[in-house]
Amino acid sequence: MRATVFHAPGDVRIETVPDPRIEAPTDAVVRVTYACICGSDLWFYRGINANWERGWRTGHEFMGVVEAVGAEVTTVKAGDVVLAPFSFSCGACEFCRKGVHTSCVNGGYWGGDEHDGGQGEAVRVPRADGTLVVVPESVSNDTALLRAAVPLTDVMSTGHHAAVSAGVRRGGTVAVVGDGAVGLCGVLAAARLGAERIFALGHHDDRLQIAKAFGATDLVTARGDEAIAAVLDATDGGAEAVLECVGAQSSMDLAIGIARPGGIVGYVGVPAQVEAVDVRRMFSNNIALHGGVAPARAYIPELLADVAAGRLDPSPVLDMTVGLDGVPEGYAAMDGRTATKVLVSLTS
Amino acid sequence: MRATVFHAPGDVRIETVPDPRIEAPTDAVVRVTYACICGSDLWFYRGINANWERGWRTGHEFMGVVEAVGAEVTTVKAGDVVLAPFSFSCGACEFCRKGVHTSCVNGGYWGGDEHDGGQGEAVRVPRADGTLVVVPESVSNDTALLRAAVPLTDVMSTGHHAAVSAGVRRGGTVAVVGDGAVGLCGVLAAARLGAERIFALGHHDDRLQIAKAFGATDLVTARGDEAIAAVLDATDGGAEAVLECVGAQSSMDLAIGIARPGGIVGYVGVPAQVEAVDVRRMFSNNIALHGGVAPARAYIPELLADVAAGRLDPSPVLDMTVGLDGVPEGYAAMDGRTATKVLVSLTS
Repeated sequence: MRATVFHAPGDVRIETVPDPRIEAPTDAVVRVTYACICGSDLWFYRGINANWERGWRTGHEFMGVVEAVGAEVTTVKAGDVVLAPFSFSCGACEFCRKGVHTSCVNGGYWGGDEHDGGQGEAVRVPRADGTLVVVPESVSNDTALLRAAVPLTDVMSTGHHAAVSAGVRRGGTVAVVGDGAVGLCGVLAAARLGAERIFALGHHDDRLQIAKAFGATDLVTARGDEAIAAVLDATDGGAEAVLECVGAQSSMDLAIGIARPGGIVGYVGVPAQVEAVDVRRMFSNNIALHGGVAPARAYIPELLADVAAGRLDPSPVLDMTVGLDGVPEGYAAMDGRTATKVLVSLTS
Repeated sequence: MRATVFHAPGDVRIETVPDPRIEAPTDAVVRVTYACICGSDLWFYRGINANWERGWRTGHEFMGVVEAVGAEVTTVKAGDVVLAPFSFSCGACEFCRKGVHTSCVNGGYWGGDEHDGGQGEAVRVPRADGTLVVVPESVSNDTALLRAAVPLTDVMSTGHHAAVSAGVRRGGTVAVVGDGAVGLCGVLAAARLGAERIFALGHHDDRLQIAKAFGATDLVTARGDEAIAAVLDATDGGAEAVLECVGAQSSMDLAIGIARPGGIVGYVGVPAQVEAVDVRRMFSNNIALHGGVAPARAYIPELLADVAAGRLDPSPVLDMTVGLDGVPEGYAAMDGRTATKVLVSLTS
């Protein structure tokens, strides 16, 4: 089959790789219909995550059609349309039962040197029963609903994790740091959870307009101390729930700086560039830091039900579509910020 | 009156200072019967907190008898025996109503250059209604119960805040980092909340014996990576609730290192020497950091009821007693670790 392979920072290629096959009785093989390129893919694409090696497979967001299942798989069958979260998990261990599927003792992540990546024609899915979520026909037969469902594989579940971790409540005040796809989904998640006032903090007018459409009531384009002052002033002391959706030092500083005493920062930006958190400000004000890598599998069923009901549509974050051969171009567009998030369509 | 005054690192003295008097209609004046020296007092005593200036007043843990009240005070009256939390608060603002009394918009801390300290003969108490808690006669007439009540002013409430922040639950596994008075009270608080297995981590055999008496089931005296390995091994992956009760870099590293995926570090040690937290380990494992300066006022009524009922007795942490003139000796003993916590008795 053909799949995306990392060669070097700035260099990913579509190459022929071995076809996936059932290796364990708990496996499934999924033929990919839609995949995405993630903001976190830029960490290796830009060489910031320097652990990546030539030949590793890329992509961790995909949906598709089950092609084959191992003998022990019971919850999905050939022909089912399925969503995969960005990590696989057994669904049965202590951590899966607690909803921390990303810490599954039998789990792992797509791509790299050991697993197929989502940005290819097919994927061997370990622990298929614990990992895959069947998409109802009402969604799989509707292209618009399918596009709304794809972001549940990562960014929508991650934005939701930020909101849940930050304790967003009905009628509350929320601030979302970052206007990338995760930040925008964080706004949407906060609105879905009933937040009354939602500050969106970012630097891209077009993305902030999406934030507004997703429910943001206040847009803040200032940076650093000026942004902190703006939110503290407008909220009379800070937002009780802050969603940190970037993972940079400046965004973490900003998030902690605008949190209200007793509030919570829900952080989901991969902290690849966070060296310190202002623990003294946190301590004095009882500001908590919750979150981490999102257990998407825990959230997909609930979010998918809302997609199916037409109540949830994060697809506006997908502002560029390519075929498999266009994946390198998609990376370049996200790296150059000419695209927020790229959808890879393998359906034609 | 006479009170303790800071002169320089290592140098506190008992001096004559102005008598407190009612300045605002919401004030009370309390004649101190018992005070304490706190581990956090060592931050200025050792010169680590270099903001302290000659002439500042010391002490933030005290109880006593109300001597006078302002015209607007309604909940305490002259003659009442009262406990004071280590910060004063109005009891009415948004943050007091939320239980974050330490962020009270009308509140503040004892001592320094603006307020009386607890280590003196009397204290002017601002916002008396929101601050003071009346001690029932069954406690105030019983010396043993009084000694059990004094630590509620700070260390017992702080240990309880660590346990609450860390989400200690009945039947759960808890690890407490630090065998100072707060850490020991953290063990007691975790046991009170029903934890089944409690690891106490420290380096002082005598204090760890108190931890054992308070409910610790496992004592760990190793340091650093060795301590982390010991707890991870004994718990098959970490404690779900970790209480960080020191505030040093090594203790914060240890606390995060022994937390179970999906777990919470409840931290209450003043982070005077914490420069970084391992946010990448936290992120990968969804480990939360919760806590801060303890809103003791929120907890004192509940804890005092348990003291009155004979169900809660943190007084074993008070292993040295001095009179007011002995306060400098008490500081030296705590600095030299020959005392865990010093009680200052002004009753004779």
